[in-house]
Amino acid sequence: MPRYALRVEYEGVPFAGWQRQAEHPSVQGAIEAALARLEPGPHTIAAAGRTDAGVHARGQVCHCDLEKDWDPFRLVSALNHHLKPAPVAITAGARVDEDWHARFSARERRYLYRILNRRARPTLEAGRVWQVPHPLDLGAMREGAAYLVGKHDFTTFRSTQCQAASPVKTLDSLEITEIETGAGREIELRLAARSFLHNQVRSFVGTLERVGAGAWEPRRVSEALSARDRAACGPVAPPQGLYLMAVGYPEDPFAD
Amino acid sequence: MPRYALRVEYEGVPFAGWQRQAEHPSVQGAIEAALARLEPGPHTIAAAGRTDAGVHARGQVCHCDLEKDWDPFRLVSALNHHLKPAPVAITAGARVDEDWHARFSARERRYLYRILNRRARPTLEAGRVWQVPHPLDLGAMREGAAYLVGKHDFTTFRSTQCQAASPVKTLDSLEITEIETGAGREIELRLAARSFLHNQVRSFVGTLERVGAGAWEPRRVSEALSARDRAACGPVAPPQGLYLMAVGYPEDPFAD
Repeated sequence: MPRYALRVEYEGVPFAGWQRQAEHPSVQGAIEAALARLEPGPHTIAAAGRTDAGVHARGQVCHCDLEKDWDPFRLVSALNHHLKPAPVAITAGARVDEDWHARFSARERRYLYRILNRRARPTLEAGRVWQVPHPLDLGAMREGAAYLVGKHDFTTFRSTQCQAASPVKTLDSLEITEIETGAGREIELRLAARSFLHNQVRSFVGTLERVGAGAWEPRRVSEALSARDRAACGPVAPPQGLYLMAVGYPEDPFAD
Repeated sequence: MPRYALRVEYEGVPFAGWQRQAEHPSVQGAIEAALARLEPGPHTIAAAGRTDAGVHARGQVCHCDLEKDWDPFRLVSALNHHLKPAPVAITAGARVDEDWHARFSARERRYLYRILNRRARPTLEAGRVWQVPHPLDLGAMREGAAYLVGKHDFTTFRSTQCQAASPVKTLDSLEITEIETGAGREIELRLAARSFLHNQVRSFVGTLERVGAGAWEPRRVSEALSARDRAACGPVAPPQGLYLMAVGYPEDPFAD
């Protein structure tokens, strides 16, 4: 069966997460239902990463197997037609080899976390950012973040439900920048790694927020990491500020 | 009575526009209702500009007169509390002189117009951008835009309902940039002028889109301008891509 890679954008708020569930709307379920309008199902698609309820994606990648030899352009148009009005859109599609796998072929994941750092609640960005009303010290946050970059046992920063075989991962980068929006400050945290543990980004961000607020010394991030103990983690940041931005492969299936 | 300047952010989609209306929700009505929770009304506030239905603001400015001598910080907090859950937030407040006027004291307005230039419809930015599915030539759009900068009779580019005394205005700048979002291209148009005519920005953008699409030669923008005829304008771009970003005053009332 021909295999197709799809790049997917979605707003996480209306969904119980990526993964299909019997009782709740999911992004996987929405795409599989759209596929069933094209070819009789059931369809099972595989994604580069399973995002949690409320988490957004700009560049999630999944793959599907179809009977027919679809022109990728027409496949994307037909899927987008059937996905309406759900806030899910296929932004690129490509034919791939039958041994290509959205999850297992991936070599890098990039995430963005957005903090709206102001007293007034969000309006235009409601459900798209984490609003933090108190001042945050970016220098201290960057100092704390530096302890996390590199190869570490991230037991402290993964959910107790995490199913990964090993807690050892390599965080390639964690960059913190600020944007003056004209209506308050936005802080962006950008992270890249080959793969992430469950709740790893939100555990990092919640911990670094404590550093920025002055409640934690930056050094405490290093101590928390060394503890390899979930109880040493700061609070987990809420899902609505998190975006899966891009998934990297040895060759970009969507290039041209 | 003490006068207060307020900087306001709002999402335009749920509102029939800035201006109070008997039958429909408006941003002005929402803020005046919140003021009435603080001091018995009726209150009448004045804004730097009246945005249309569906148009957003990052930095609208208005002023109100109150009986009590409010601490601006507490006034902003109280108003934001009473504005919930409407997508309107006061992001700054300041005491101003009694002859200061949000509209008449203003010396500059800045607008942003966002085009999502891709085939797939918006998900995260639904109601926040104008989706244009066909390719747009930015070079041609910039060439067309150059004819509009400066002092001109903008009769072609104002609504027939425009109440301004004169169609002659000076457009200080119109800059067009692009952003690669990782999920398609976004085109941003940023405009600045002392003041704008009704529908002027959306008339510019709709016309420049025709240039970008190749349906109009850039020179036709110059001819349309010279015609001083509303019928010579391109289509008016939809409201949801438009943002009132900032209003400038001889002295920034919110500086501190």
